Amino acid sequence: MFTGGKYDEKEIERFSVDDGSHFSITGEILPSLGATRSFHRNSVGRFVISPFDPHYRTWEAFLVLLVYYTAWVSPFEFGFLVRPSGLLTITDNIVNAIFFVDIVLTFFVAYLDKTSYLIIDSKKEIATRYVTTWFLLDLISTIPSEFVRVILPNNLQSYGYVSMLRLWRLRRVSRFFARLEKDKNYSYFWTRCAKLVSVTLFVIHMAACIFYRLAAHYFNPTETWIGSVWEDFKTESLYSQYIKSLYWSITTMATVGYGDLHAVNPNEMTFDVMYMLFNLALTSYIIGNMTNLVVHAATRTRQFRDTIHAASSFAQRNRLPVRLQDQMIAHLTLKYRTDSEGLHQQEAIDSLPKAIRSSIANYLFYSLVDRVYLFRGVSNDLLFQLVSEMKAEYFPPKEDVILQNEAPTDMYFLVSGVVEHIVHKNAIEHVVGEARTGDVVGEIGVLCYRPQLFTVRTKRLSQLLRLNRTAFLNLIQANVGDGTIIMNNVLQVARLDIFFFLVSF
Amino acid sequence: MFTGGKYDEKEIERFSVDDGSHFSITGEILPSLGATRSFHRNSVGRFVISPFDPHYRTWEAFLVLLVYYTAWVSPFEFGFLVRPSGLLTITDNIVNAIFFVDIVLTFFVAYLDKTSYLIIDSKKEIATRYVTTWFLLDLISTIPSEFVRVILPNNLQSYGYVSMLRLWRLRRVSRFFARLEKDKNYSYFWTRCAKLVSVTLFVIHMAACIFYRLAAHYFNPTETWIGSVWEDFKTESLYSQYIKSLYWSITTMATVGYGDLHAVNPNEMTFDVMYMLFNLALTSYIIGNMTNLVVHAATRTRQFRDTIHAASSFAQRNRLPVRLQDQMIAHLTLKYRTDSEGLHQQEAIDSLPKAIRSSIANYLFYSLVDRVYLFRGVSNDLLFQLVSEMKAEYFPPKEDVILQNEAPTDMYFLVSGVVEHIVHKNAIEHVVGEARTGDVVGEIGVLCYRPQLFTVRTKRLSQLLRLNRTAFLNLIQANVGDGTIIMNNVLQVARLDIFFFLVSF
Amino acid sequence: MFTGGKYDEKEIERFSVDDGSHFSITGEILPSLGATRSFHRNSVGRFVISPFDPHYRTWEAFLVLLVYYTAWVSPFEFGFLVRPSGLLTITDNIVNAIFFVDIVLTFFVAYLDKTSYLIIDSKKEIATRYVTTWFLLDLISTIPSEFVRVILPNNLQSYGYVSMLRLWRLRRVSRFFARLEKDKNYSYFWTRCAKLVSVTLFVIHMAACIFYRLAAHYFNPTETWIGSVWEDFKTESLYSQYIKSLYWSITTMATVGYGDLHAVNPNEMTFDVMYMLFNLALTSYIIGNMTNLVVHAATRTRQFRDTIHAASSFAQRNRLPVRLQDQMIAHLTLKYRTDSEGLHQQEAIDSLPKAIRSSIANYLFYSLVDRVYLFRGVSNDLLFQLVSEMKAEYFPPKEDVILQNEAPTDMYFLVSGVVEHIVHKNAIEHVVGEARTGDVVGEIGVLCYRPQLFTVRTKRLSQLLRLNRTAFLNLIQANVGDGTIIMNNVLQVARLDIFFFLVSF
Amino acid sequence: MFTGGKYDEKEIERFSVDDGSHFSITGEILPSLGATRSFHRNSVGRFVISPFDPHYRTWEAFLVLLVYYTAWVSPFEFGFLVRPSGLLTITDNIVNAIFFVDIVLTFFVAYLDKTSYLIIDSKKEIATRYVTTWFLLDLISTIPSEFVRVILPNNLQSYGYVSMLRLWRLRRVSRFFARLEKDKNYSYFWTRCAKLVSVTLFVIHMAACIFYRLAAHYFNPTETWIGSVWEDFKTESLYSQYIKSLYWSITTMATVGYGDLHAVNPNEMTFDVMYMLFNLALTSYIIGNMTNLVVHAATRTRQFRDTIHAASSFAQRNRLPVRLQDQMIAHLTLKYRTDSEGLHQQEAIDSLPKAIRSSIANYLFYSLVDRVYLFRGVSNDLLFQLVSEMKAEYFPPKEDVILQNEAPTDMYFLVSGVVEHIVHKNAIEHVVGEARTGDVVGEIGVLCYRPQLFTVRTKRLSQLLRLNRTAFLNLIQANVGDGTIIMNNVLQVARLDIFFFLVSF
Repeated sequence: MFTGGKYDEKEIERFSVDDGSHFSITGEILPSLGATRSFHRNSVGRFVISPFDPHYRTWEAFLVLLVYYTAWVSPFEFGFLVRPSGLLTITDNIVNAIFFVDIVLTFFVAYLDKTSYLIIDSKKEIATRYVTTWFLLDLISTIPSEFVRVILPNNLQSYGYVSMLRLWRLRRVSRFFARLEKDKNYSYFWTRCAKLVSVTLFVIHMAACIFYRLAAHYFNPTETWIGSVWEDFKTESLYSQYIKSLYWSITTMATVGYGDLHAVNPNEMTFDVMYMLFNLALTSYIIGNMTNLVVHAATRTRQFRDTIHAASSFAQRNRLPVRLQDQMIAHLTLKYRTDSEGLHQQEAIDSLPKAIRSSIANYLFYSLVDRVYLFRGVSNDLLFQLVSEMKAEYFPPKEDVILQNEAPTDMYFLVSGVVEHIVHKNAIEHVVGEARTGDVVGEIGVLCYRPQLFTVRTKRLSQLLRLNRTAFLNLIQANVGDGTIIMNNVLQVARLDIFFFLVSF
Repeated sequence: MFTGGKYDEKEIERFSVDDGSHFSITGEILPSLGATRSFHRNSVGRFVISPFDPHYRTWEAFLVLLVYYTAWVSPFEFGFLVRPSGLLTITDNIVNAIFFVDIVLTFFVAYLDKTSYLIIDSKKEIATRYVTTWFLLDLISTIPSEFVRVILPNNLQSYGYVSMLRLWRLRRVSRFFARLEKDKNYSYFWTRCAKLVSVTLFVIHMAACIFYRLAAHYFNPTETWIGSVWEDFKTESLYSQYIKSLYWSITTMATVGYGDLHAVNPNEMTFDVMYMLFNLALTSYIIGNMTNLVVHAATRTRQFRDTIHAASSFAQRNRLPVRLQDQMIAHLTLKYRTDSEGLHQQEAIDSLPKAIRSSIANYLFYSLVDRVYLFRGVSNDLLFQLVSEMKAEYFPPKEDVILQNEAPTDMYFLVSGVVEHIVHKNAIEHVVGEARTGDVVGEIGVLCYRPQLFTVRTKRLSQLLRLNRTAFLNLIQANVGDGTIIMNNVLQVARLDIFFFLVSF
Repeated sequence: MFTGGKYDEKEIERFSVDDGSHFSITGEILPSLGATRSFHRNSVGRFVISPFDPHYRTWEAFLVLLVYYTAWVSPFEFGFLVRPSGLLTITDNIVNAIFFVDIVLTFFVAYLDKTSYLIIDSKKEIATRYVTTWFLLDLISTIPSEFVRVILPNNLQSYGYVSMLRLWRLRRVSRFFARLEKDKNYSYFWTRCAKLVSVTLFVIHMAACIFYRLAAHYFNPTETWIGSVWEDFKTESLYSQYIKSLYWSITTMATVGYGDLHAVNPNEMTFDVMYMLFNLALTSYIIGNMTNLVVHAATRTRQFRDTIHAASSFAQRNRLPVRLQDQMIAHLTLKYRTDSEGLHQQEAIDSLPKAIRSSIANYLFYSLVDRVYLFRGVSNDLLFQLVSEMKAEYFPPKEDVILQNEAPTDMYFLVSGVVEHIVHKNAIEHVVGEARTGDVVGEIGVLCYRPQLFTVRTKRLSQLLRLNRTAFLNLIQANVGDGTIIMNNVLQVARLDIFFFLVSF
Repeated sequence: MFTGGKYDEKEIERFSVDDGSHFSITGEILPSLGATRSFHRNSVGRFVISPFDPHYRTWEAFLVLLVYYTAWVSPFEFGFLVRPSGLLTITDNIVNAIFFVDIVLTFFVAYLDKTSYLIIDSKKEIATRYVTTWFLLDLISTIPSEFVRVILPNNLQSYGYVSMLRLWRLRRVSRFFARLEKDKNYSYFWTRCAKLVSVTLFVIHMAACIFYRLAAHYFNPTETWIGSVWEDFKTESLYSQYIKSLYWSITTMATVGYGDLHAVNPNEMTFDVMYMLFNLALTSYIIGNMTNLVVHAATRTRQFRDTIHAASSFAQRNRLPVRLQDQMIAHLTLKYRTDSEGLHQQEAIDSLPKAIRSSIANYLFYSLVDRVYLFRGVSNDLLFQLVSEMKAEYFPPKEDVILQNEAPTDMYFLVSGVVEHIVHKNAIEHVVGEARTGDVVGEIGVLCYRPQLFTVRTKRLSQLLRLNRTAFLNLIQANVGDGTIIMNNVLQVARLDIFFFLVSF
């Protein structure tokens, strides 16, 4: 027996508490169509971690933070530092150690095979895949620079280059943002912006460091971009050096190019040429992304404006009476407001499968429809099915819902608001009745298949459930007994109605 | 009695005068679906103002004007003025007083709860919400700067900062534009442009003021962007200082960057770096918006061009006779012109509910269809329903509306223009008749369900009402009496027609 | 008597020669819906010219050319010339005279009322409208500058300003481009580009002239953008002056801003600020337009790529046999090629009204279908109706058109290419027949309503006409006699076929 | 006998090996509609090469490589070299010789007539077309520069110009990219990027060469962009000259414009003006393309976010129980994941013709459905047709597939996963059964046309085949015998089921 509208609080509580987490399906993998031919396991073996494990996800997010640190520190060491200094050495080595832990961990994390969409949890296959792909690069990027300096002869130069190898870790950030973009808990707009800002800041910082290194290592310091302006730049504070490098970098990147600082020797020119080419691509990419976001944000408003404009033009061109014009505009404005409040009701519901839609409709409307006079004594089964077929609609005040004499295609149940019954006689409108929450209008036309008796017009903002005649008849045909009950209900009430109505004229 | 087409002028007048304002529904709030479970009040309590009150809206618009004043004056005071001067002090304090009034007022304005979409009018809740959110910032931004100078020891510096606090008021402007964009009385394009221009001008002005302040407060005036070019810049006129600051600001913002003025000391560089980064975002945003507007404006024309191009290519590739090609192009061009004149007739009408569509159709076409010979003696009810089913279509001159021998799917009523009846005999076309306003064509085919007797071709631009056979039959089935009348009408007239037609060959 | 497929060459010739021009409907105005209520005349009175008159259109195009001349000369005179010189004076006055003629002419040109869409041809109304709107500006912009110099005291200065008034004529160009964009005889892409290039060149030229004038009229020539670099700039050749101005103008406009030339005095700075702001809008507009054009051009290719990609992924993921994969890709590729050759066949045809579509189908396919054995002896009427229901489809080689045992929903007529009949027996395919142009496949399944007997597979690229079973039966029901003939036809041929087929196994 | 699901490995192998290449249809031409009126040959005559010949295609791709060489070398020779040097002369002449071979070859390559879409293979027509169009330009661009120097008097200058004529070959690259964009074997994104990078690099290189030539040939070397900074620039190394030119070129192109190098004499200014104008167009084009790619890439994610957002808002606004909310979100997320894994299953399949869709459905599901108890003893024909009507759907865990009491519109076959049968009794849910792979749910409701007996809910991620009641009944009507078998099957099993079910309460 149907329980629609009767979920008690406790039950809801239960669902939310112990079932809530089970509905997260991001961790599972779709089997291919035709299951008998392919076999997928969604769980992983012992001592192997699923790549969708929440703890592993947190670990990955933590590593992304460290990557941000690396992204700032590595180019900085490359450009400005000759040898590592106290604090930086310590933090660098701690970060390296953490990434080394991740390397070890990776041998125990199952992976998703891209072609078969299978989760591979065989330790051998995991190891083979990792060793043949990114293992070496990952390992090299965790080697402490002190160790390198001991091994390599030209230890000063190499310090910077080893540092740069760590940028290999940046690939984690791009994967991180790709996942964030699809996560409904984070705003798409801000995720996208954060990504663009991260990229831009990194590029500027990186270029600043390279620019400075080029100048610092050039044989003739006065023939460099910075030395030609400040001859004693090497003795300045690190902050002053960095801010000047950053200033030139962003001046070039933003294509401002004041010209107070500019490339002087061929090395700088070569790098600058490549940097400007890259910036051309980057700024295009930023503009493209911003356009994407702006167009997206503006679509809804534009559609509304277009529709309203078309309706107004149509009305004016055909000199429709003001009352009709107002009805048109009011209806379209209401429709848009419903949307702009974040509902898209019908759209969202329509994309769901039938069972969920029925559940929603019954949860919302079953108790109301159950009390309608028309369905007194009708079986729960039919009622359940009828409610699933109903569509909720809003009508602004003073809008006609049904016109007198029109063909009976729908009946309406009032959820909220008030509507009037109006009869046209000798071109004068007579209000002959009113309907409120729980009443039904247009049912006599639909059941007796004759032109509607009254014009039905809203008195204030009303919510109505529309039930289509064809859908209604289809359901009645399969429940003949209930059909008779409904007809009896309507005849008892309606006869009196019509009787009084005819008398009143 | 249907009154379609008979709204007298007086009635229309009445509607427009005393009902016009009631149709504005922007002030109301949608109840959630299933009204019996939630309860919404749309009216607010005594001594509490609705946020949708027209007077309150006007007050808000007035405040926006004052915000524009603040947006210009505050950065200017921050950058260029050491102490407030006569007139400026007075206007500043008047503006502050007005905003103080608004703070008091806010305690009496109901607000819309974002999660439940309820209007909250409890004074306690309003006060709690305001005090816990923006009250303090609003209050601080109205403190007169004279008062601050007395309190704080370092009174000169603080003058500018207190001034800057007032920019907090800018949030009003963004809300104002958001509302304007959705208002059909203002052009979307120009609203959007006004917003972009406002933002751009504010940013340039703001940056100019900050740039100047940075230079004016630097310990060594010759090591500033302005002092390194004009050493005695502090003695220049305020206008000259301002125009130079503005000039550098826009030079940087537009990425022109002549380089005659450029950052010199680290402070300026730091600010300039941030300014250029911000500009990168701002110009992307401007370009994104412009692209949005351009694409929107061009969509219609492009669609027209694509359709015409496809039709021409098809015709040429399949070597269709010139007459057919001309018909195709003429029809598509006409269709587009109908659109470009701002009608989108069918589109606009289709998005309205059935009752409004019926009203429109009856207002426009009832009186014409009432006089058609086919419907002589037919009940008003049926006529009303038939008119609701008709679709108005334009046909360019010399286009075939009906082809001889084709299956009878539609009949057409002439609203304007002239069409010819044409009979093909031995591959020669014979014109055997003509139809004008109020005539009907194709009805014999439809009623007798036999291939059309004539080709019907327009002689000039014609407007026709199309009535689909299926829709027509469905309505007739429910009105058997009227159906017989229609058949009699058609037999009386048609028999003669066909008789004369057969004789003529 | 249907004449489809029998238009003789002479007839086609006749259409194209004497009717061609009548199909141009751009000159006519749509009446509003419901013609009996409003009255529109499409012709204009005596001695009044229609605004859509071809001769008047040519005159307008000629004036646009002169506007281009004005757009170049006016700013040039404003910026560089102190007094008019020989040749320029003469051409200027000729152009002025022609525009004066246009002013007189305008009093005789009917206009289109924007609100009622009526052509107003009353001379009084035309004159009233013109005098109250643009007459004065038009008139002032045609006054010869010599005349102005005599009247005004400060005649040197005024020469330039009078010249600038003529830019009022530019409004013609914008109207001209708006019309060109909708004209199918001109490429949309190039029209749009021409418009953008025109605007950009004009802005650069204009700014160059104003920049030079600012420098030339400044009290201290060495404190100007040009004088601070070339002190004796006033004695240089006109060409040198112009190219330097243009160089600075474009340097600023394109935001390159080398800085070799830059604003020096406050006047220049003020203008430069405004110029840069305007350029920000203009470049955004150019980028927006380019994006619009690029996105438009790329849409089709992108859709194709997406579809192909989706199909490939689906096939690989579900491990479909190679043969099926190939069929899928081949079909989609063919579909796209049909589009890319500029046909969009079905799309273009579907947007046309039924009568035109029937004409096209009959012109193309009637003669072929007439010769199909199935329709031997069938009436022309039915054949005409059947052909209208058929859809032409291309199939790549080796694609299955019909599968053995599938439900019979369609039959196919071969227009070109070859198809094989294949029977599956014990998982082996036997080719049991072949069909060529004029044959029909799948008819036995459709007519006898039983699963298809053969798999039908194309041997090479084939064109087939698809006829849906439901559409076919609907037409047959209304022509019972013809239905019997068709059944007889099929039984005579098919029985033998099936007989031989059964024997062969 | 249907062979679905029984393609043995050998057969698949055979298809892929000897048929694979035949499905490539890019080489064929579509006949126009109505084949009897036009005649197309797809093969070409003897000694004539088809333009779609794979060998010829490879030859064209090879030539494109040589064009890249020419595109770099020609401007370089034009700008920097006075006379050809050793190695360059040799390679130049080899390349010229290869292009000469291509000229000869072109006389033997058939071409596609753009208006009739016919392949023209008459040698005379090929020759006529080539000679009257591009032959002369092609020929001139292959003349060796040594030869030119002998003929022309002023041989030094001419060397560069002859070199530039070879850029005529660039038109090949644009055709090459147009073809690559449509080729599914290459990524659209990277093809497009490669094209933009090629264009940008060529423009920068070209401008660099022209800039240098302008400076090198100016009468006063100190009044040039390069000479005014480095007086002895002509004695510098070629590399230094080139990198400086390139540096200025890109500085201008990217609108950075440092100003350390800038146009000095009118010649340079004139070229620079044109270069900047061109760059305005080029950067707009690059941004437009990038926007196109970004918007394309982001569409899918945005749609997903919009849908999820709408559903969440709807749920919160109407206070749906948490269980329903979770079902909604889980369903939409699953749907999106299916898409993001590159399937678009339904979309891709729906755009294919019926025969291919049936083949796919049968290949995937026939063997599973064959084993369902419902279809025991049913003919293969009906099974084949039923499988074609089924749609595969994924359901996330704990989602309702069928609701108790709802109208029976579909039945479902389990491909994978597990579902529970649940009965609501006194608002408590009782699990009364479970179904697994190969089971069918909802069949009793559909066959007996009564409300569903159970709620069916997934226990884990499940794949179900949905069969619509109407489609099912239509097929059964045409196979009455099989219908009886199915009913017997259902009654045997279901009766027991219902019996036990009723007993259990």
